[in-house]
Amino acid sequence: MTTIYDEPEDFATSALKGYAAVYGRFVCAVKGGVVRSTPRVAGKVAVVVGGGSGHYPAFAGYVGPGLADAAVAGDVFASPSTAAVARVCRLADRGGGVLLGYGNYAGDVLNFGAAAERLRAEGLDVRVLPVTDDVASGPADNHLSRRGIAGDLIVFKVAGAAAEEGRSLDDVEAVAKHANARTVSFGVAFAGCTLPGSAEPLFTVPKGQMALGLGIHGEPGISETAILPAAALADLLTHRLLAERPADCTRVAALLNGLGATKYEELFVLWPQVATRLAAAGLEVVRPEVGEFVTSLDMRGCSLSLLWLDADLERLWSAPCETAVLVRRDEPNLAEAIPEETAEVPTFPAASDAARETGRCIAGIIARLADVLHGAEAELGRIDAQAGDGDHGQGMTRGATAARVAADEAVAAGAGARSVLAAAADAWADRAGGTSGVIWGVLLRAWSTALSDSAARKDADVVAGAGLALDGVTRLGGAKVGDKTLVDALVPFVKTLETAFAETRSLKAAWTRAASAATAAAEATRALTPRLGRARPLAERSVGHRDAGAVSLALCAETVVAMLGD
Amino acid sequence: MTTIYDEPEDFATSALKGYAAVYGRFVCAVKGGVVRSTPRVAGKVAVVVGGGSGHYPAFAGYVGPGLADAAVAGDVFASPSTAAVARVCRLADRGGGVLLGYGNYAGDVLNFGAAAERLRAEGLDVRVLPVTDDVASGPADNHLSRRGIAGDLIVFKVAGAAAEEGRSLDDVEAVAKHANARTVSFGVAFAGCTLPGSAEPLFTVPKGQMALGLGIHGEPGISETAILPAAALADLLTHRLLAERPADCTRVAALLNGLGATKYEELFVLWPQVATRLAAAGLEVVRPEVGEFVTSLDMRGCSLSLLWLDADLERLWSAPCETAVLVRRDEPNLAEAIPEETAEVPTFPAASDAARETGRCIAGIIARLADVLHGAEAELGRIDAQAGDGDHGQGMTRGATAARVAADEAVAAGAGARSVLAAAADAWADRAGGTSGVIWGVLLRAWSTALSDSAARKDADVVAGAGLALDGVTRLGGAKVGDKTLVDALVPFVKTLETAFAETRSLKAAWTRAASAATAAAEATRALTPRLGRARPLAERSVGHRDAGAVSLALCAETVVAMLGD
Repeated sequence: MTTIYDEPEDFATSALKGYAAVYGRFVCAVKGGVVRSTPRVAGKVAVVVGGGSGHYPAFAGYVGPGLADAAVAGDVFASPSTAAVARVCRLADRGGGVLLGYGNYAGDVLNFGAAAERLRAEGLDVRVLPVTDDVASGPADNHLSRRGIAGDLIVFKVAGAAAEEGRSLDDVEAVAKHANARTVSFGVAFAGCTLPGSAEPLFTVPKGQMALGLGIHGEPGISETAILPAAALADLLTHRLLAERPADCTRVAALLNGLGATKYEELFVLWPQVATRLAAAGLEVVRPEVGEFVTSLDMRGCSLSLLWLDADLERLWSAPCETAVLVRRDEPNLAEAIPEETAEVPTFPAASDAARETGRCIAGIIARLADVLHGAEAELGRIDAQAGDGDHGQGMTRGATAARVAADEAVAAGAGARSVLAAAADAWADRAGGTSGVIWGVLLRAWSTALSDSAARKDADVVAGAGLALDGVTRLGGAKVGDKTLVDALVPFVKTLETAFAETRSLKAAWTRAASAATAAAEATRALTPRLGRARPLAERSVGHRDAGAVSLALCAETVVAMLGD
Repeated sequence: MTTIYDEPEDFATSALKGYAAVYGRFVCAVKGGVVRSTPRVAGKVAVVVGGGSGHYPAFAGYVGPGLADAAVAGDVFASPSTAAVARVCRLADRGGGVLLGYGNYAGDVLNFGAAAERLRAEGLDVRVLPVTDDVASGPADNHLSRRGIAGDLIVFKVAGAAAEEGRSLDDVEAVAKHANARTVSFGVAFAGCTLPGSAEPLFTVPKGQMALGLGIHGEPGISETAILPAAALADLLTHRLLAERPADCTRVAALLNGLGATKYEELFVLWPQVATRLAAAGLEVVRPEVGEFVTSLDMRGCSLSLLWLDADLERLWSAPCETAVLVRRDEPNLAEAIPEETAEVPTFPAASDAARETGRCIAGIIARLADVLHGAEAELGRIDAQAGDGDHGQGMTRGATAARVAADEAVAAGAGARSVLAAAADAWADRAGGTSGVIWGVLLRAWSTALSDSAARKDADVVAGAGLALDGVTRLGGAKVGDKTLVDALVPFVKTLETAFAETRSLKAAWTRAASAATAAAEATRALTPRLGRARPLAERSVGHRDAGAVSLALCAETVVAMLGD
């Protein structure tokens, strides 16, 4: 669906106007197209490209130093008029003649060809370069019958670089035709595009299918097949193109092109699969490009283009250029490789015997929590599924299990209370996944800072740690009581622990009372009506896993009661 | 629909791997993210950004000189883990401390915040910068409660430029927070996105409606309304943001962002409408950016972000940078403005009386053709609609009428036969639109070259001109007899004209026989079975408008018969 426009018939000219307004550093708008706004040497061959609109960055996005000198834009998917092509060429010429590049389509062939004849009659030397890269549209032994798709950019890049070097029109034409003869593309489409003002797509592909070799305006493909995974799609694309590999060729330029609604990340998923297959065929890929270079409005699909390189073509393909869509510079000097972290045995500060004893005690508590949470996994999942995505039980089990392993390792390495709990906290955060894992990591790590690796445990430190844990969770998480999160149970737990300990000076008595408060609060929070979002608010949905987080906190608090000495 | 992947759960890591493979000149892949691969000065503040995947170029695409030093990537629409954030920060730090930038979402706030605390405990100075630009998600007087959308890039750009200047961590943090406080965004969504592996979109917007203020993961918007034309959409976006304009502000940075399947050309259509409204509000726009900067997989929609500039922010926004998505350089020196053609009264070579007489005769024939084609417009449209788009009658009328005007003007200006026919040819090509217009332009222009502006008309020249016309049409158009185009009638017409003239030496007799041959051929071609395309092959469909082109050619040939003297 093309959604944004005022009058459909003004879409192409409005888009061109907006493009030129944004990219005044590269282009200057003229009637029917754009001309390079940056200085050029007199006598340089002008590379003028063009075709229908709806293919951005083709063709206006190619104008700039090192690539095209001007672009002519027709209406959506329609060739520019002969007059428009001729007018833009006259403005682009700087005395070196014009190379006219366009895809091999009937309308473009006619209009660009007729413009060239008209201009020649006026005394301007103009050569035509219809690009014919689409292997699906004609046989290899008659490649000039093929239509032009994303290979356009490759051929124009070579031509633009040759012109920028100051070569003659004869030379620029020759190397551009050589590049065209060695450029091949193959594409697939998953879904059609919709013209501005149309309610229905221009064409459709059956659901779950993809069309092989479909053109960029919906021209027929060669067949349909089920949509393939990335690896198999890479097989398909590379296999079809490698069949036309010249015998002598060991290096290729490559361009993986998205047609509009197939997004960059999908192309990035596909690219390593393609690169692997090209490498396996003994080809070295030079300066690959992955992105949107020739689109078809919001069509879904992609194409792979290869240019079989020789030394001259490689230099021209790699040469600097600067346009809205393609920026090439000389290869930068890279920094030293970033050293990845090496897996190390963690080291802990030296600990006193008393602190090591408390550390063992903490490890025992964590082990017990892991067992209890594992037993409650299904029930926690059921509670979570009512408001969230149902994975809270799994996350808690994963976190507590990882924490148990880390705590045991810390104990074995001689760590004290503070380090054992910190190690458990980090492991919980890093393995649990989801937001509750982070919250538990912060909770336990903040708590650990009240403990010591040297001094003996004091009950007051444990209580103080609970306060630090609450501070950490509320500071980072931002949830308040009543938000139906873990905080709903954590606040009464900590407050009760603090008051009861001040009153009784008994950790066990205070903790027992605090655990009961947490349990009561968790039950109360489950009865609250959840705040409902109209859509599915992913970010909110994960905050503390709603009431399941309060329930699991209370469960952990109750579990610890039995483990505390009097 | 996200279509290309192998295992959905590997989508984010595969995409990051592919991105790093393509953009090795900017980044180096590390576990959980990317780190800048270009050299940096020791002691420089590291700007580390990140968040969930599915938002490319956010966030890995922002890494490079002048912008970010590293990016952390979570799973699709999910925060990276605390451990991943901490790991990437350790690798990115060069001794100047770290500014951690991310959008204000619960999961990100937790994980980036927890990582910052963990790193501070290790002795690394880390500051956090949650971006809060989305005006739809919170009130202006509590802007820190807002979530972060495309304003991310603006705030990160300012921070990155400040860090590149060598400012201290305190200074970088301060200016980044200042930029965040002055950055506002408002967005609309036309349709939801689909996660890898899902069959259904994450959320939907009713057909014909758009959601105002929808978040980049489908968080609820503030309302829905009918989809607006570009001008009204620009009103909506600018009005909402201008309401928060600081009193002193006269200059803004602007970023018009596409969410994935809303394409560049749509954004370019919208941009001038936005720019006009900002100018009308007395704001000067500095270095606007229009494109895809924060996407949401293949979501349809767009957002407008503004940064209320002061002198420091303007310098930092405009400072050079080079990344996969954003390249800034010092403003280039532009060439002299391109002079547009001025409308001129065409001039013609001096002509003999005899050639002017023939010119008048030609203008008369063209006028008659325009009348006859006008009368046949509906019928030609009906014939064309059976195989094409039904506009052949209109196109022929438009072309012939324009040719009549041009021929009359040329006669009035004293032009000879050759110039009158050439002027008619160019006008026909340029005004008719479509492929048949070009073909008729080429046909008549080629024919004109057999005539003269000085010598008197010879019948043999007229016949020779027909041969040149056929050459021109077949050379440019590439159609062959049997393709169901104008060529099917033109070939027998020209061949018959040539043979009959050689035999009879009478132009009228030869032309009469040739016109009959053309008519017979046009009838025959209509009886041929058309080649059928599976989809609608736009390019092919327009070649000579199929058999309607043969019919109109025969009609013109017959019309001329009555006008030829014996």
